[in-house]
Amino acid sequence: MSVHNELRKDYLLNRWVIIAAERAKRPTDYAARPAEPETGRVCPFCPGNERMTPPATLVYLPRDGGIAKERDSDGLRHRGWLVRCFANLYPALRPEAEEPRPQGLELRLRSRAVGFHQIIVESPNHDEHPGNARLSQLRLAFDAHLDLFRMLSSHEYVEYVQIFRNHGREAGASLSHAHTQVIATPLIPTNVMREIEASKRYHEEEGGCAFCKIVEEERTSQRLIYENSTFAVIAPWASVHPFEFWVLPKRHGSSLMGVSDPEKEGFVKALRLSLGGLARLLGDPPYNYGFHTSPKSDGEHSESYHWHLEVYPKLGIWAGFELSTGVYINVTPPEMAAESLRGSVEAEAEVVG
Amino acid sequence: MSVHNELRKDYLLNRWVIIAAERAKRPTDYAARPAEPETGRVCPFCPGNERMTPPATLVYLPRDGGIAKERDSDGLRHRGWLVRCFANLYPALRPEAEEPRPQGLELRLRSRAVGFHQIIVESPNHDEHPGNARLSQLRLAFDAHLDLFRMLSSHEYVEYVQIFRNHGREAGASLSHAHTQVIATPLIPTNVMREIEASKRYHEEEGGCAFCKIVEEERTSQRLIYENSTFAVIAPWASVHPFEFWVLPKRHGSSLMGVSDPEKEGFVKALRLSLGGLARLLGDPPYNYGFHTSPKSDGEHSESYHWHLEVYPKLGIWAGFELSTGVYINVTPPEMAAESLRGSVEAEAEVVG
Repeated sequence: MSVHNELRKDYLLNRWVIIAAERAKRPTDYAARPAEPETGRVCPFCPGNERMTPPATLVYLPRDGGIAKERDSDGLRHRGWLVRCFANLYPALRPEAEEPRPQGLELRLRSRAVGFHQIIVESPNHDEHPGNARLSQLRLAFDAHLDLFRMLSSHEYVEYVQIFRNHGREAGASLSHAHTQVIATPLIPTNVMREIEASKRYHEEEGGCAFCKIVEEERTSQRLIYENSTFAVIAPWASVHPFEFWVLPKRHGSSLMGVSDPEKEGFVKALRLSLGGLARLLGDPPYNYGFHTSPKSDGEHSESYHWHLEVYPKLGIWAGFELSTGVYINVTPPEMAAESLRGSVEAEAEVVG
Repeated sequence: MSVHNELRKDYLLNRWVIIAAERAKRPTDYAARPAEPETGRVCPFCPGNERMTPPATLVYLPRDGGIAKERDSDGLRHRGWLVRCFANLYPALRPEAEEPRPQGLELRLRSRAVGFHQIIVESPNHDEHPGNARLSQLRLAFDAHLDLFRMLSSHEYVEYVQIFRNHGREAGASLSHAHTQVIATPLIPTNVMREIEASKRYHEEEGGCAFCKIVEEERTSQRLIYENSTFAVIAPWASVHPFEFWVLPKRHGSSLMGVSDPEKEGFVKALRLSLGGLARLLGDPPYNYGFHTSPKSDGEHSESYHWHLEVYPKLGIWAGFELSTGVYINVTPPEMAAESLRGSVEAEAEVVG
C-alpha cells in the first residue's frame, strides 16, 4: 500500500474518495464510546407494550414447533411474538388510495409523499442486535425482511423498498431496542438509479455483472474480510467510511426476491460475524446499513445488477468539503480496515461456531 | 403550504427531499446547545502563536492606512496580521511536482492525491465568526478567499478550488478559532459536475441561466429570507437540511473570479446578516457552508452556471435511509425556515445597521 494519500474512484460510481494513508487512523485511534445511558423510559418495542405501537402488519408466532405468520386486527395485539412489524407512528411516507403525480413548475417539482414506512422489531429481547444475536433469531428477522419486502413491493405505486438499520444514537437510532426500518418509495432513489445505470453500462461494455467480477477479484485481495460458501464480506476499494464493508452473495442475483434457503443461512452468518467483529474491534460503534436491490421495474432477474448490503460505521463527520463536493476523505485505508476486521471476525467465529 | 408531507425535487439536480410538514420542527424544537467547553489548550491560530503553524502563504498586514499582502519566508513569521493563510498541517491533498495520472484496473481506479489544502484565519480575534464579525473584517476575509482562489487556480493540475467552512464541533470544526478551509483538487468534484451538467442542460432547453431564473422567482416567494441590491438569500425549494439557505448574486456571473467591488460589499453584508440571524434564531448552531463556482476548464464566463454559497445548518443526522438512497428527509419545511429566518435577520440588521 502506498504511503501517499490516494484518490480512489468507486468500482462503478463517479464517486471519489481521498484515502488518507499518510496519517491513517488505526482501530485503537477510535476511542470506544461509553454505553448510552438508560433513560428509564418504557420501551414501546418490548413484549407487553404492544399497545404503544400501531397494530402489527406482520407478526411471527411460535406454533406447533413451527412459525405462524399473522397480523393484528385493529382491536387485537398478538403477544408472545418472535418478530413484529408495524407502521412507523411518524412515517416519512404514508399510504394513499391514489397514485401520486408529480406537479409544479419546471424548476419546482413536487409530488405527494406517498409510500410506506414500517418497523421490524428483530427480537423480543431488547438488546439482541445482529452483531450479538443467536443465528436462529437473526434468520427469523431476515425472513421477516423478505416477507415485508414482498408485501410492500406488491403495491402498485411502490417503485423501491429500502430496508435499512440505524445502530446507536449517533447513527440516528432514537430507540435502542433491536429494530430495522423499511421505507417504500414511489420513485427509484437517486443512489439506486446511479448504481443500476453504472452496472448496466458495465454489462454492455465489458459483458457480465460488475459485482460478480468485484467478488471474484476482491476475494483474493487484501480487502477480503470473511467468506463462506454463499457470501463474501469485503472492505470496498474506495470505501467512503472508515471500516466500511459490503456483504455480497457469490451467486449472481439481482433482487432480494430471489434469495435461496442456503443463501439465507449464509447471509445471516456473514452478517452476525462481520457485525460482531466490528463491535469487538471498536467497542460497539454506531453504524448504518442498507440493502441494495434491483428496483421493481427491473424485474427480479436483471443480468447486470447484484443485490448486496452496505455497512457504514459512523466514526467521523461529513463536513463542508464532503457536503459541497461529494468527494470524501477516509482516514482508514480499506486494506488496513480489512486486516483488523479479519482478525476480530475470526475471534467472533470461535464464539459463534 | 400543504399539511401533507411532500416529495420535492431540487431545482436542477436529480435529488429528492421528503419535506415532512406533518410533524414539522419549528425553531423552538431545536434545543440550543451549550457552548463548547474551553479546553485550555493554546490556540495555534491566535496572534503570537504563528510558529505553531506552517509559514503563511498569504498574510494581510495594515500598512500606511491600507493593506499590504505578504507571505512568510521559511524562517520568518509576520506578526500583527489581519488575515492569515497557510497550508494545513495535515493536508488531505498535497502539492507535487508532477501531474497525477489515474491508473489501475477498470474497476479499481486511483491517482495520487495531489492538490492543496489551506487554512484562512479570518480574524486575529478568536471568536470573530462571520455571524458576528465586523463588516470591515469580513470584507478582508472575503478578499483573502478571492486571492487564495486565484493563487491556487493558477496551478496547472488544479481543476477546482473548494472553499468551505465548518462551524462548531458537531459540524467537524476541530479548532474553534474563526477559520475557513480551501482544498484545491485535481478533478472536478462529483457534485459540482452534476450542477454544471444540469445547468447546461437547462440553458440548452430553456435558454438563459437557471440560477438567474431561481433568483427572479424566489425573490417573490415565501422562501425569500433577505435581499440587498446585489444579493438574495433564499431557503431553497427542496432544502435538504433544516434551515438551509443559499446566498446568490443577482447579476449573472459564473465564477468567484468575476466578483465586482459592489458585489463584495453586498455579499459580505448578506453573509453577516443571514448567519447572524441563524445564530440568533437557533443559539449559534453548528453549520457547514461551501462556495459553488465554475470549474477552471469552463472559464470565467459560462452562460449557464452561476456562482453562489450554500449554507447547511447541522441539526440532524443522516442515517441509513439517506445514506443508502440519496433521498433526504427534512423536518422543517423551507417556507417555515424562511419565515423564522426573515424575522431574525431583520432583528440582526437593526444591530449591524
